[in-house]
Amino acid sequence: MARKNFPLSKVYGLLETGPVILLTTSHKDKQDVMAQSWHTMLEFEPPQIAAVVSNRNASYDMLKATRECVIAIPTVELSNAVVGCGNTSGRKIDKFKKFGLTAAEAETVCAPLIEECYANLECRVIDTRMVNRYGLFVLEVVKAWIDPARKDPRTLHHRGRGYFMVAGETLKLASLAK
Amino acid sequence: MARKNFPLSKVYGLLETGPVILLTTSHKDKQDVMAQSWHTMLEFEPPQIAAVVSNRNASYDMLKATRECVIAIPTVELSNAVVGCGNTSGRKIDKFKKFGLTAAEAETVCAPLIEECYANLECRVIDTRMVNRYGLFVLEVVKAWIDPARKDPRTLHHRGRGYFMVAGETLKLASLAK
Repeated sequence: MARKNFPLSKVYGLLETGPVILLTTSHKDKQDVMAQSWHTMLEFEPPQIAAVVSNRNASYDMLKATRECVIAIPTVELSNAVVGCGNTSGRKIDKFKKFGLTAAEAETVCAPLIEECYANLECRVIDTRMVNRYGLFVLEVVKAWIDPARKDPRTLHHRGRGYFMVAGETLKLASLAK
Repeated sequence: MARKNFPLSKVYGLLETGPVILLTTSHKDKQDVMAQSWHTMLEFEPPQIAAVVSNRNASYDMLKATRECVIAIPTVELSNAVVGCGNTSGRKIDKFKKFGLTAAEAETVCAPLIEECYANLECRVIDTRMVNRYGLFVLEVVKAWIDPARKDPRTLHHRGRGYFMVAGETLKLASLAK
């Protein structure tokens, strides 16, 4: 997939709609990817994100050890891979291989980008004070990539128990909000 | 709007799709409501939520003082009210009156429900340790209400600068996730 630098000042617009993300980590020659919906923006610029990663996930240990990850944003075309990543554990299988995801080298972090995702955000952990209690990692996006051809990506939005809402039409309203 | 008790165990499914919410507060005979997209689930049950409220918002002072709020979830039919709430300050106007929102008494908190919203979550603040640094309030939902007639609510999802994505079709996939 074509990949172009994306301004950090616009990252919030990719995430505040609430899409399912694929969070990648890499540690000691092992890579992992998990599906995740529990995240929120914390700050516009530099973009800061709070993301929940449970200590039941293999990604938890790798995120704690390296303090780096990539947030990749999939679209409906990747539904099978997203569901597959959610249904399995990186402790048992190589999810990239199993679900046909292509890991690509990031510029600033050890975690891989995912070629098939329309956006990839390279992140560093900047605050771990809420990790023990809530599994909440505070991340800062240090580099962002996008496929410039994708204007209205059909992101997935988890409703629970197998149901996913797909991004619908976009309206332009008279909002003054950033 | 018809209102029925909604199981706390299912609340996460209302929020993890990432909808724009209306957050209400009430303090000293004054009520406020703000539009907000920066929130995430933290725990399934009891449902815990992290929500960002900036100290630039009138709601911030009321939330800090009372430690109670309601998260009301609007649909596309309420676009004008949502945008209006986002464009104005509760320090200057009564947003309920101005935007045609009907405040209704909650059961367990001082903040009002919004009659026109298809779901209303009564919340208490349970952790303020991330408020000074990130404006991040940890909330616990203590009571939830829903309009049982609304099966696929067309929620709004903020993309920034006036653009809002409207919830699209729902797919059933073979996910084992809660």
